[in-house]
Amino acid sequence: MKASQTIISTLRDAPNDAVIASHQLMMRAGLIRKLGNGLYSYMPIGLRAFRKVENIIRQELDNVGMLEMKPTVIQPGEIWKESGRWDKMGAEMLKPQNRGGQDMVVSPTAEEAFTALVRDSLTSYKQLPFTLYQINTKYRDEIRPRYGVMRGREFTMMDAYSFDRDQASLDESYEKAAVAYRAAFKRMGLSTISVKADTGAMGGSGSEEFMVESEVGDDTLILCPGCKYAANVEKASCKPDVALGADGKPQVATDKAVEEIPTPDVKTIEQLTEFLKTTPQAFIKTLIYRVENAGVDLGKEKKFVAVCIRGDLDVNEAKLCALLKASEVELAEEADVIRITDAPVGFAGPVKMTKASVICDNSVMTMHDAVTGGLKKDIHFIHVEPGRDFTPLMTADVRTVQPGDICPECGGTFYSKKGNELGHIFKLGDKYTKSMNVTYLDENGKLSTPIMGCYGIGVDRTLASIIEGHHDDNGICWPMSVAPYQIAVVPVKYDGVMKETADKLYDELTKLGLEVLLDDRNERPGVKFKDMDLLGIPLRIVVGEKNLPNVEMKLRTASDAELVPATDAAERAAAIVQKALAELNA
Amino acid sequence: MKASQTIISTLRDAPNDAVIASHQLMMRAGLIRKLGNGLYSYMPIGLRAFRKVENIIRQELDNVGMLEMKPTVIQPGEIWKESGRWDKMGAEMLKPQNRGGQDMVVSPTAEEAFTALVRDSLTSYKQLPFTLYQINTKYRDEIRPRYGVMRGREFTMMDAYSFDRDQASLDESYEKAAVAYRAAFKRMGLSTISVKADTGAMGGSGSEEFMVESEVGDDTLILCPGCKYAANVEKASCKPDVALGADGKPQVATDKAVEEIPTPDVKTIEQLTEFLKTTPQAFIKTLIYRVENAGVDLGKEKKFVAVCIRGDLDVNEAKLCALLKASEVELAEEADVIRITDAPVGFAGPVKMTKASVICDNSVMTMHDAVTGGLKKDIHFIHVEPGRDFTPLMTADVRTVQPGDICPECGGTFYSKKGNELGHIFKLGDKYTKSMNVTYLDENGKLSTPIMGCYGIGVDRTLASIIEGHHDDNGICWPMSVAPYQIAVVPVKYDGVMKETADKLYDELTKLGLEVLLDDRNERPGVKFKDMDLLGIPLRIVVGEKNLPNVEMKLRTASDAELVPATDAAERAAAIVQKALAELNA
Repeated sequence: MKASQTIISTLRDAPNDAVIASHQLMMRAGLIRKLGNGLYSYMPIGLRAFRKVENIIRQELDNVGMLEMKPTVIQPGEIWKESGRWDKMGAEMLKPQNRGGQDMVVSPTAEEAFTALVRDSLTSYKQLPFTLYQINTKYRDEIRPRYGVMRGREFTMMDAYSFDRDQASLDESYEKAAVAYRAAFKRMGLSTISVKADTGAMGGSGSEEFMVESEVGDDTLILCPGCKYAANVEKASCKPDVALGADGKPQVATDKAVEEIPTPDVKTIEQLTEFLKTTPQAFIKTLIYRVENAGVDLGKEKKFVAVCIRGDLDVNEAKLCALLKASEVELAEEADVIRITDAPVGFAGPVKMTKASVICDNSVMTMHDAVTGGLKKDIHFIHVEPGRDFTPLMTADVRTVQPGDICPECGGTFYSKKGNELGHIFKLGDKYTKSMNVTYLDENGKLSTPIMGCYGIGVDRTLASIIEGHHDDNGICWPMSVAPYQIAVVPVKYDGVMKETADKLYDELTKLGLEVLLDDRNERPGVKFKDMDLLGIPLRIVVGEKNLPNVEMKLRTASDAELVPATDAAERAAAIVQKALAELNA
Repeated sequence: MKASQTIISTLRDAPNDAVIASHQLMMRAGLIRKLGNGLYSYMPIGLRAFRKVENIIRQELDNVGMLEMKPTVIQPGEIWKESGRWDKMGAEMLKPQNRGGQDMVVSPTAEEAFTALVRDSLTSYKQLPFTLYQINTKYRDEIRPRYGVMRGREFTMMDAYSFDRDQASLDESYEKAAVAYRAAFKRMGLSTISVKADTGAMGGSGSEEFMVESEVGDDTLILCPGCKYAANVEKASCKPDVALGADGKPQVATDKAVEEIPTPDVKTIEQLTEFLKTTPQAFIKTLIYRVENAGVDLGKEKKFVAVCIRGDLDVNEAKLCALLKASEVELAEEADVIRITDAPVGFAGPVKMTKASVICDNSVMTMHDAVTGGLKKDIHFIHVEPGRDFTPLMTADVRTVQPGDICPECGGTFYSKKGNELGHIFKLGDKYTKSMNVTYLDENGKLSTPIMGCYGIGVDRTLASIIEGHHDDNGICWPMSVAPYQIAVVPVKYDGVMKETADKLYDELTKLGLEVLLDDRNERPGVKFKDMDLLGIPLRIVVGEKNLPNVEMKLRTASDAELVPATDAAERAAAIVQKALAELNA
């Protein structure tokens, strides 16, 4: 492609709303343009990179036997009512009515559509298993779309759905998806971290997120340097540790009975630690939580629980939510705390707590001779022995794991990173096939229900993440596999012998099957070099009169250029491109 | 691909709502499945054919230098308000509101989006000309979607928009699109008829529709066997003919004054012909039309005109509409006819017509001594001389051309066909660039407005039309270029030596780069043959024990099979595929 025949529309400055590198560079390089809030259009050069990402994903899914199809983007609302998600999806789902007043949906995901289509085609066990996928437009009405295509309202998602007879078969389908994901991300130069995700709210029996490290990541990852342990903080577990006394030794059981002590004006654990001359580990911290739609019986106070944890630790609400099979948990309002604890905020404790059930983090059960709130203003209990002085409804791991905690797998010391989710794989079970009544006849002629897995990769977000990981001060540094063009041929002036040499080189490179952008624009060389750097073309060949019969070859990521005879340049360039692709495919 | 690893879901019978061949066959072959009214999903094998159509279009557009990009499907309503089409598009456009209450549009076409994006990027004349295109999802809320993907609500459209400095440049961009269209349709085995379309309502200075002959076509085409003349009946013109008398000779002028004659109980031209013993050509037929939003001054009755035409001809409302620059014309209600003609329906005429202006078809102006309605019940005028006895506001071609009329280009005799529009190309001018304020600086630093062309191809409709033109009683007969698979390898039984031979053949063919479907299903041979015929795979290779070491090769469209040594089969098949592709590409 000659530069004069495509649209190169670079900007010196990124717009003000672009605060992360990928958004800034995609705007500055003219790869995308904004059409509305959270609505980005891919311009011709941007679309080339986008299609490469899309095709790499497609190829790797095809390689493991997944089948591409194409449902409609606009879907009948009735299938969303069948599955029960019509109401649950909330304002994120765009729900136009058609001219007949029928409810429609602009697809935010497609479990329902695939399930409905399979329902019409599936009759026999002989057809199973299969995994269907699409790479198609989705829309989610994010409240605050931001970061350009990283979190847009309209986006392109690869979403796949597997249909299996049983758990063993689902496990295989799931593993195939994981293999395809790993291959695809690797080919695109992305180093992903595979983490176990919190699957609580969505149900299902297993899931994995493919995260990429990012300073602007939405997720916090807990990682072990010693083994492959990696988990979203919402689900991470650490090795249980024994509660220590002020002397640094394990706490020792006491025979003394619980005793009230006055603690005037002492509200925080910090104040209490000072007041009692001990460490936070001596305290049982108790938090009153409001619980929405709990899936387990919470006793008298159906909507509230008292959650106890060792004083130096924090409760992880995602884990608590999963434990209680709830749709949401949040700290109780002050009025509810006062009602439930008969005291102002700051004096809750499990001893003599009668109004709400007590949930204990595992950390509490190794504590002895502990301190806790006295359910009265300015009163604490001391000499508290868990088990003896109170009995929890449940004891479980609801602790927020932190850097410095110990890996349960290998004993390594955890560290933490911010990450963005690029893809996920998820065992759905029969959630949709049951609610939408999908059946098949098994070998014995018996009606059975298949089980599903679902799998997703955000195409736009993957593209943006590649840029996040591959750029410098001058612009994008595309990995060869996803570069919009592999080679830029830049004549210092597109005229005379430089034009001849550049044209010849362009023809030779194109004939070798390479993707070349010839900068034939009538611009100063500096402008052209800057634009090619900003666009991130991996290999640049400069044709300047003073160097002829040599030309200058430079990798985007190299600091120095190399002089090469113009007659050898095409073959040399081809070799460089092939080597780079081979390394990504290896 | 092995049949067991994809989804073959054929039906013995098409659903009741499928009344045309392509819809029936696409359903029966399992290429598409219905998700809702006018909402069809492509299943894996169907998508393969769909993608081939899409890619052929893409390649041919790229070949003429068009640039693909990807705006969003969901668009801000505000750009539609800027262009003025927010109200005009009516109920066909799906208009959801987002969570902030902002008006959004599910794109039914994309003039506004491309214009808005170009507005942000275009600064200098140096960037022009260019043509941008997308192949993307569209939605139009058709009142009665029908014929499967031929007229669905959601569909995929290639839509392109050219931006040029002047008319000469636009003419070139337009011609390039035409070249790409012709190449693409030819490669897909479609024989298209290129017709001049009615461009009245849309404005603009030129347009062409690419039609394909179809018994279920929405359009009527007027064609000349002698030359390349082809036009939509809405715009077709014929050679003017001289009005003939009852003796078959040109009508002769009369000196007699207009005279009233009583014509009791005579209302139709047929009755009048009999009553006066003459031919329909003797009568000036006069129709009162109601005109919406006329762009020309119609005189006193702003909304009504009297349209005169020779008694044997019909008024073409599309031509009338274009002539009057109106948004719509329709025959007036009875009450309006009575008011305007002072008589019941059936006695309108141009003589002494004072209430509405008279529009004459050219055919009237060669009439002499004519008969027309007398503006009174049971009265006609005779001896009417156009020009002498009445003066039309306008005289123009508003006649509906019919088979048998004479070609204005070559004198051939027109015939007629039904057709479906697959694509169109259209010179838009500055309609959008002006209303949406797109400018650039010309060589002299002066702000100028670019002019646009727009171009569209319906991808789904093209696919369906290929099937309409390529099928027989047993199923689809794909042209090689768009077949989901080029070759079907069918072992009579997938077992023993037949399995070995089929597997070997499959490997050889796949290595040769061919697209092969190996029917490894445990079905009776008859079932497999029927399915492969229904699916329309162009070349079938049957591996049966009794024929070994030969295999049976048969083109889908041939009546007889040929025995070929299994060892030669792959090379023979490759040659057949290459030849078929070469013929389509020629």
